[in-house]
Amino acid sequence: MNERAYGLTTDLYELTMAAAYFENGFHQPALFDLFIRRLPPHRSYLITAGLEQALDYLSELRFTGDQINYLRTHPTFRKVSSGFFDYLESFSFTGDVWAMSEGTAAFGMEPLLRIRAPIIEAQIIETFLLSTINFQTMIASKATRVVTAAQGRSVIEFGTRRAHGTEAGLFAARAAYIGGCIGTSNVEAGYLFGIPTFGTLAHSFVMSFDNEDEAFRAFIKVFPESATVLVDTYDTIAAVKRLTDEFRGSSIPAIRLDSGDLCELSKQARKILDDAGMTSTHIFASGDLNEFRIAELIAQGAKIDSFGVGTELATSFDSPALSGVYKLSGLEESGQIKMRIKLSKDKATYPGPKQVWRFADSAGKYIRDIISLADEPEPKAEQNGSARPLLKEVMKNGEIVDPSSNGITGLNALRDHTLHELMCLPDDLLLFDSKIKYPVSFSERLTQEREKIELQITRV
Amino acid sequence: MNERAYGLTTDLYELTMAAAYFENGFHQPALFDLFIRRLPPHRSYLITAGLEQALDYLSELRFTGDQINYLRTHPTFRKVSSGFFDYLESFSFTGDVWAMSEGTAAFGMEPLLRIRAPIIEAQIIETFLLSTINFQTMIASKATRVVTAAQGRSVIEFGTRRAHGTEAGLFAARAAYIGGCIGTSNVEAGYLFGIPTFGTLAHSFVMSFDNEDEAFRAFIKVFPESATVLVDTYDTIAAVKRLTDEFRGSSIPAIRLDSGDLCELSKQARKILDDAGMTSTHIFASGDLNEFRIAELIAQGAKIDSFGVGTELATSFDSPALSGVYKLSGLEESGQIKMRIKLSKDKATYPGPKQVWRFADSAGKYIRDIISLADEPEPKAEQNGSARPLLKEVMKNGEIVDPSSNGITGLNALRDHTLHELMCLPDDLLLFDSKIKYPVSFSERLTQEREKIELQITRV
Repeated sequence: MNERAYGLTTDLYELTMAAAYFENGFHQPALFDLFIRRLPPHRSYLITAGLEQALDYLSELRFTGDQINYLRTHPTFRKVSSGFFDYLESFSFTGDVWAMSEGTAAFGMEPLLRIRAPIIEAQIIETFLLSTINFQTMIASKATRVVTAAQGRSVIEFGTRRAHGTEAGLFAARAAYIGGCIGTSNVEAGYLFGIPTFGTLAHSFVMSFDNEDEAFRAFIKVFPESATVLVDTYDTIAAVKRLTDEFRGSSIPAIRLDSGDLCELSKQARKILDDAGMTSTHIFASGDLNEFRIAELIAQGAKIDSFGVGTELATSFDSPALSGVYKLSGLEESGQIKMRIKLSKDKATYPGPKQVWRFADSAGKYIRDIISLADEPEPKAEQNGSARPLLKEVMKNGEIVDPSSNGITGLNALRDHTLHELMCLPDDLLLFDSKIKYPVSFSERLTQEREKIELQITRV
Repeated sequence: MNERAYGLTTDLYELTMAAAYFENGFHQPALFDLFIRRLPPHRSYLITAGLEQALDYLSELRFTGDQINYLRTHPTFRKVSSGFFDYLESFSFTGDVWAMSEGTAAFGMEPLLRIRAPIIEAQIIETFLLSTINFQTMIASKATRVVTAAQGRSVIEFGTRRAHGTEAGLFAARAAYIGGCIGTSNVEAGYLFGIPTFGTLAHSFVMSFDNEDEAFRAFIKVFPESATVLVDTYDTIAAVKRLTDEFRGSSIPAIRLDSGDLCELSKQARKILDDAGMTSTHIFASGDLNEFRIAELIAQGAKIDSFGVGTELATSFDSPALSGVYKLSGLEESGQIKMRIKLSKDKATYPGPKQVWRFADSAGKYIRDIISLADEPEPKAEQNGSARPLLKEVMKNGEIVDPSSNGITGLNALRDHTLHELMCLPDDLLLFDSKIKYPVSFSERLTQEREKIELQITRV
């Protein structure tokens, strides 16, 4: 959608490494895993998102002439031969990608994406893939928490003004929808992705009229079927009373509370509305909400039908970064895979192309995951249960594989998929401060393979 | 730079309000303030950023035919007359903007921007302005903390992979540079904004060779003048020893530590390098750094010359949202200003077009700020000190006012401006957990004006 300078949408070290690979004649296929090393605090599972944008990027990735000229004159590249820049002129991504479908429950150490591509291509794409998958996965995961808290009441994302820029707002809206929100305030997300968009009115609208009632009338006249009337500009309860006096018996779609004691105000407002026969008028609440606040409001019996969640959702405020990494796991040479691992303290990795197997019991509840080498046979499932592989091929030789081959197309299907995943996860894992850790382990062969390579390295 | 669908880069309620204003014949000029209600936890000052992107947006804001068709068929707009959509076809921003220069120290309740525009225009731009100014100001402010901690050592921003998408990464790089970083890893930020870009190499490069030394040689060969050699893939100290054995007496530009006990490793590595006569080889450190960690490393005598800071900086991790708001302060009618305020609990506002005056003592140190009505005379400065207005006109009738008229053009000047601001702030305010609150008050006339309107409203 955006004509972005994708070739340079990367860290400089990806390009210095690319030049060094080129100048040293390195072009063999390399294998990379993109994974979250460990779940952040307050998260017991993740819901993946961002794959569509990642694949679009891989399809469109090129270097323009101006971009290449920028690099040619960059002081760092002073000693790089012009062969490298010629190479960039015809650069495109020609590799293969396996990935979990968006909306899939995922855990620490599990590859969300696996790349196989000529090493320079595989290296350059690291920054964009991480940024995109880290962000949308973080937001989709946060959204599931907020939506779970609302216990069936609607949640609308409206955090663009507090998101990390407008593109972050746009993709937060997308990820929040995958995570179960019913829509967003972000109009661009509606226009580009078909996500339902919702809007109320701001205090400024009320304030621009000489009195509140005039403002209400002016707005309801234009939006009789959708108006959500903001009642807290001056005195919430007084405003609701006057509103019901004027519109008694008719149907104002909704009112919105945005400040004060939302629980108490919602109860009072509900009673006033009901007493005026306006039982179908919904109460929408907003104002620094998050999963904890929503759960508390519901527990206290607040009469709120739907929630607008902004800052906390669009920034994943309590946990605003996901530590996704992108690690080399092997190199192909004459058809053989040379396995690779990293030994750095606390940052060790596992070798080779991988698959993630998810075990479910006979009721479909997830029991545990095993990360194996990709060529290991399907593991034996527990009694009456099943095991299924989570990584599917989504790009082959740089071409997107028909997404319908995975059975999941379109944002609504991804949203349904998320909902299904949440139902399959162990119930205790959905608690906001779950102390449960979902069991993820490495297959015996992968563990042995790692030990073998570790010995080789430390012997050197 | 991006051909973004700016017309729809907004919240739906801005457009429903726009339609309601239109249908009710509201076109008078409105006055809005953009301000941060209160500083977030752990922040005792802010450094403004994002104005350039905000003004570019205002200059380019249009609705395309496809965007208008999307709105025409949106269920919410079903009863809106076609006159409104015709109006959007020729829409552009024609208003005036006053703003603080980027890189200016700012505090709670102070307008960072002040808008005067026909009310529909002034309303539609709210979301974009907030998102842009909130984000870049948040990052520039965080950057000053990290840079202050480094006590003159270089700090490089490299958080794009953990930023909230790649656009957030790009603008985080820009804001971090304004905040005092010497550069970024984000190549696009170098290409588009001329920010110096830096890169090292990743573990994957080291791992793609059969042994570490081969990888070092291959990289140094291509980048003899700029190579920053990553030494922690397998065993940090062993790698440094072998490196000095091989390159003894020559000049490897830098080594990079990315894991383990950075303080201890830096001391050992420094000694090994010095013993080999490689005293000019710099030590660069990275790995979950922030202002506290950097201050601690320096206090412990770490031998680190420069720091790479990613996640914590590009997400403002400890305080990942700024609660900027955009509030109506008045409406113009036949040349008169009708003052407006909001009374909502904890969210009250002040009326009218404002100016922010900054008082300095004779040494140039900032003493306090006063927020006044824009037409109040220049306040009297304290003895031998001075008072200067912070809000300058930056856009007139939708046209950007020559930025050089403010004396500050270009990112380097903004960066210098930030540095100057930090020197002028009370020293204690720069402490990371400063308990000092910089004094900001409202002028007597503004306070009286507010009380007058509050009485009028509550009498209704």
